[in-house]
Parts: sequence; C-alpha cells; structure tokens
Amino acid sequence: MGYYILDKTNIVEYLNSIENVKKYFAGDDLSIAEIGDGNLNFVFIVKSLKDESKALILKQAVPYLRCVGEEFPLNKERMTYEIRALQSYAKHTPKHTPLIYDANEEMSAIVMQFLGEHIIMRKGLIQEIIYPKFAEHISDFLATNLFKTSSLCLDSTAKRELIGRFNNNTELCKLTEDFVFTFAFMEHDTNDDYAKGHESAQKLFADMKFKKAVLELKYKFMNQTDTLIHGDLHTGSIMLNKKDTFIIDPEFSFVGPFGFDIGALLGNLIMSYTSHMAQETEISYCEWILDLIKEVLEKFENKFLQLWNEQKESSLLVSGFLDNNEIDEFKKEFMLNILRDSVGFAGCKMTRRMFGIAGVEDIREIKDEKTRNKAIKQTLKISKKFVKHYKEIEKIEDVITIIKGAQ
Amino acid sequence: MGYYILDKTNIVEYLNSIENVKKYFAGDDLSIAEIGDGNLNFVFIVKSLKDESKALILKQAVPYLRCVGEEFPLNKERMTYEIRALQSYAKHTPKHTPLIYDANEEMSAIVMQFLGEHIIMRKGLIQEIIYPKFAEHISDFLATNLFKTSSLCLDSTAKRELIGRFNNNTELCKLTEDFVFTFAFMEHDTNDDYAKGHESAQKLFADMKFKKAVLELKYKFMNQTDTLIHGDLHTGSIMLNKKDTFIIDPEFSFVGPFGFDIGALLGNLIMSYTSHMAQETEISYCEWILDLIKEVLEKFENKFLQLWNEQKESSLLVSGFLDNNEIDEFKKEFMLNILRDSVGFAGCKMTRRMFGIAGVEDIREIKDEKTRNKAIKQTLKISKKFVKHYKEIEKIEDVITIIKGAQ
Repeated sequence: MGYYILDKTNIVEYLNSIENVKKYFAGDDLSIAEIGDGNLNFVFIVKSLKDESKALILKQAVPYLRCVGEEFPLNKERMTYEIRALQSYAKHTPKHTPLIYDANEEMSAIVMQFLGEHIIMRKGLIQEIIYPKFAEHISDFLATNLFKTSSLCLDSTAKRELIGRFNNNTELCKLTEDFVFTFAFMEHDTNDDYAKGHESAQKLFADMKFKKAVLELKYKFMNQTDTLIHGDLHTGSIMLNKKDTFIIDPEFSFVGPFGFDIGALLGNLIMSYTSHMAQETEISYCEWILDLIKEVLEKFENKFLQLWNEQKESSLLVSGFLDNNEIDEFKKEFMLNILRDSVGFAGCKMTRRMFGIAGVEDIREIKDEKTRNKAIKQTLKISKKFVKHYKEIEKIEDVITIIKGAQ
Repeated sequence: MGYYILDKTNIVEYLNSIENVKKYFAGDDLSIAEIGDGNLNFVFIVKSLKDESKALILKQAVPYLRCVGEEFPLNKERMTYEIRALQSYAKHTPKHTPLIYDANEEMSAIVMQFLGEHIIMRKGLIQEIIYPKFAEHISDFLATNLFKTSSLCLDSTAKRELIGRFNNNTELCKLTEDFVFTFAFMEHDTNDDYAKGHESAQKLFADMKFKKAVLELKYKFMNQTDTLIHGDLHTGSIMLNKKDTFIIDPEFSFVGPFGFDIGALLGNLIMSYTSHMAQETEISYCEWILDLIKEVLEKFENKFLQLWNEQKESSLLVSGFLDNNEIDEFKKEFMLNILRDSVGFAGCKMTRRMFGIAGVEDIREIKDEKTRNKAIKQTLKISKKFVKHYKEIEKIEDVITIIKGAQ
C-alpha cells in the first residue's frame, strides 16, 4: 500500500489498521480534529468519544508546504527524518520524547502521545511563566542526544550509518542554508515587508564583517558532521509545563555541528529576554531568563563532560593513547569550541528572525512599533556581537556579559 | 551474474564479455600476467600477443587483504569507491586519470589503461629522477578535484549525493583512523619490530602534546565533509614520467577534509627529502625536492583560488551577499586553514611511517642503521613540529623553514 493523504474520511480506517493504536483506544468511537497551527504538515488530534483523556496525535507530511499550498512543493520524505530523529530521542531521552505509537515512513505519518497538558514554550515565555525544571530537562536532552550520536561515543561504522540515515534530508537543510544563513541578511523578496526601508535592516545588510562571519558559520553548518542535531530547536519546538519537557518537530534533523541546536535555543531564549525587556515586563522575569540561559549552558557542559568521562573508549580515543592531563585539556578545548560555535549560531538564528521570512511571535507581534523596534535593536546588538566575536568567547559568563551589555 | 573471483582461467572470457575491451583488442589472442605488488587487490596485465603495445590493466578486489590472505577479511566493496573516485577524476582531470575501459561495481573490478611508460613516483624519487612537470600536474589534479567536489562549487543536493556515494567506505576510513592516527603513536602489536626499544619511538609514544594534537586532527578527519578526497595520496599512488602524471588507487576515497590529500603528498615528499639528506645524495636533488614542495603548495593555492574566482555562485556564497573585499578576505583565511590542516595531516602521515605497520621504502629500506636512524630523526623533528604547530603556520614559506630547520 503506497502513500495517500490522510483526511477525516479515511483516518479512522488508517488508525484501525495499526495494532498499537487499536489497542490504545480499545474499540472506542473516535473524534478527529485538525490542528490548524502546523506550518509544514497536517496534524490531527484523535480522541476517544467515551473518554476524552484518551487522545493521540496523528501527523502527516504532504508533498507541499501546508501553510502555502500545492504551489510550494516540499518533499514529503521530510517526515522520514522526523520519525528517525524521534526514534533516536526515544532511545536516548525517552522522558523528553513524546511516546510513539506508530511511525510509517512510507505514509510519511506518525502517531504519538497527545501532549494535552503542555504548551509550546514560546507561548509560555510570552505569558511570563517560570519553568523551574526546564534547565535540568533541556540540558539532559541536549547533552545526552548530542553526545550519544557523536564520534565521541559511536564507533565509526555506527556513525557512518547514522550519517547515511539522515544524509538525504537535503531539502530541509537547504531551507536552513537559505533562510537562516543567507536571504535574511541581504535584500531579498522573501524578507518581511517590515525590512523595506527599515534603518536597522539597511545597516545589517551593509555590515560586511558580520556577513563574512555568517559565511564561516554557514560553512560549518554545511560541512561538519559532529552529531545528530534537531536542526530547528527554537522555543516553538519545545512543549512543556512546570513538570515535564518534550521536544517535538525534528524534521530538519541531520548529522551536523554540535553548536547548532544549543545556538537555536540560546538565540530564542535571548529573543524572549529582549522582548520582555523592551516591553518592560517585571524585571524578575527577565532575570529569570538570564539565569536560565546560564544554567542551561552550564548544565549542558557538565552533563556532556560527565557522559564523556564515563565513556572509556571510542573511535576517537583508544584507551591508553593519551594521559589524563592531556585528555582533560583536550576536552576543555573541545567544550569551549562547542560553546563558541553555539554563540555564533545563536547570533545567526536571532538576526534572521528580525527581518527574514519567519519572525518570532515574541518580537514581531509586539503591537507598539517603538517598543518592537527597541526589542529589534537590542536583539541585533547582541546577535551582531555574537556572530562577529564568537571565537573570542572564553567562558559561559562572557555570553551573559554580552547580553547584559546590550541595553 | 554475481561476483566471482577472476583468475587466469576465466579472465579472457570475462574480458570478451565487455564490448569496449573486445573492441580494443580486436580479437587478438591475449596474455595474462599477475602483477605481484598489489597489497590489497589482484592486478593483472592483459596484453595482445600480436602487438605487445596493446595492453590493459585488470584490477579486482577480493573479500580479503591480498597480501595477507583470507585470514584478514576486507570488504571487496572497497573497489566500488575506487571506481567512483576514478570516475570523478576522469570527469574533472582526465589528463591525470588512467583511461577507464570498464568499471563493474558488482564484480569489484575495473579495466583500465596500462601505464607501461610510467613508474611509481616513490621509486622514481629513490632513483633521483627529476620530474619537471610534476608540480604543474599534481597542483592541477589537487586544485581541480578538491574544488569541484566541495560546497564551494557543488550545490547542496549534489554535495549530499556525493557524500552518500562514498559514505559506506567505512572499513577503509577505519583503517586510516587506526593506522594513520592511532596505533603508530603508542605501544601496539601492529607496529614494526623496529619500534621495540627504539629510543625515538619511546620518546614519540610519550609525547603527549604531540598526541593531543593528533587527536584534534583525527577528529577533523572523522567529522569534516569538505570534499571528495583520495584518502591515500602518497607517492606510491602516483605513476609518472617526465611528461605525464597519473593518480591511481583511490580505494580510501570519501568525502573528508581538504588538507588530507595535500598533507599525504607533502609528508611523502618530505620523507623522500629526509631520506636523501641522510644518505647524502647530491644536494641539488634534495634542493629540487624542497623547491618542488614549495611549487606544489603555491600552485595548488593559485589554481584553487582561480577556480573559486571563476565560480560566480554556489550553495555557500550567493551572488550579492558579500562585497569583494570581504570575499577576498574570506578566501584568504580559507586557504590558510587548508594549508594549516595540510601541514598537520602531513605530520601525522610522516610520523606513522616511522614505526607503524607500514613503512615507506625511502626510509625503511635504508640498509645502514645509522643512516636510517638519521633519516628517522630528521623526519620526526619535522613531523612533530608540523603536528604541534600547524595552527601557527602563516604562509607556505613557514613550511619550508620548518623542513630546512630540522638538520
């Protein structure tokens, strides 16, 4: 049975063909509702009519961009990579991965746990919610997944197999090359109308030192196969509440540079910070975000190093090759390079959200123009410094200093 | 028809099944002779009995290491990568690629031009032959192939396809990880007997600063997908005479770091130099090698930059993104990084030839022990400096200075 597009007329039949799902709903009648907020894909909530707490998500990719329509064709095989990444997350960090009931690469469809008690983190941050466990959770997620799928842990054969399983996610990697690293930094018809004639946009597009550094970072994105990355880990790819944190939507995943996911998260937390600062939200919330950033970076480093220290041998480091002092020195430099690249990528990610095709709600939805421009200016101050000076970062505190310095 | 091992009893029938080869020999009776010097594979010379100038090479991989036997199994699919790399070379630098008459991935076999008037470069250098066109030729080969298969030239889709076509050459990449970057720098039972108790070996194995830098370079080898590399471009993989230069044996090929092939060549030219210096060969020959090294590096850089300048647009650099000054600055830094990595890789390649499993004839075959040790010492002086200080190299002249300084 080949691929076909799922809709309300055939979803029940499809779900009944999956043993795992049939068992979950135990023969209950089902309601099907489409969630309208998926940009790329169709997402349905399937609920038991008898017991509304029994609910699953069905997500399917169609061969075009859902939010635009058939005139913007996009390979449906992107779901293959989302499925494979989620399966990898389920293996390494099941606590932070929605439970998968069925994954069907041929149908470009996945059935998974409905996160009814969690919201998209970006929304939560806009609502000034404090998440006391988030730093702990996301550092677990990042450290474990980034370490376990790298050459610091996998043997050469497993690493190459992993590269092979994600290597054809070309179309979505290309989207990142174009929209995260290129078009948003030059005059381009995909940019937001807001960019036209905007003073900060003009200055940005003319900042050649910035753009040269972007090119370096783009090259790293295209040519470094450190580890399996999510590829789009902004605060819209995280669902959480005060108790749990889940990572969703890894359709951009591929084997890429260590710093990219950390950078995406860092950049998006900072945009929440600059948004709240511009809007004069209570200072304690802004300070919580700053503390959170520091905690995430520190906990990531500690946990990553702990996993590395537990790993006695790898393709990279054969036991007995190097003495402990030099190993520690190697690891220290390695972690610093991850931090630096994370800062550089964060800078690209933040900057492209200012005038590029896709903004972030935190800033683009600020109604008052003066306030919005204040947020944009502060964001750009930080992001330009990040991109131009990421190689000079020496410690986590330097990152915080740059953020605080951009008042 | 599946894979079977070719031998004198079935080769004629096999060749007659290939239209292109049948046409070449035009029905002549054939003689088949095995060349004994292949380490990994079976290599046969097929000649017309009527006209001995009509000759082809038939090379087939068997599922084990030919020079050891069936007790050392080695995936015969390595020939797949040799075939694919040769086809890529034939496309980009046909002048330096043996003419391919047939390539059969299923049979792990290739039929190609017999280079009867050319010798292995290592032998030529040992015989003190001067090759006036070599720098021109090899810089063509390196610049063209390394540029044309990189993200500086290919679009993202073609680049990922290329990665995919070589990604499974795991076994041979692993050989490099183990034998070029690891075992030759520590006590290991694969090392040459000569290493046991050798003072320089002991010092090398204890040099932790050196080994930490090796680890960095090994990480680059494992995680950088710059371009299609030969993977084993020492002077034994080059056949030439005073007029022509051919590159052979790219079974180690995969998409890896820019500097690896240049480093392999550089390191092997230097070992020829240190060998001649220790043996007190006429100084003019030693000086020719030094000049050659400089010329190769300079010509490579110029030709690579010329190709890059001719390339108006690429996945990396969209037209109109950056102004010319910054582009030039970016390219300058990029070329310097290639040079630095080349020096680092050259250092690893040279060092591993001293006490590791595979020596080079230039040095290991020096009969007089004192002379041999002199060559080893000089080589190690250079190679250790290369590995520990490759990131401090600022220009090509610095490389020559290090070589000359190691008397």
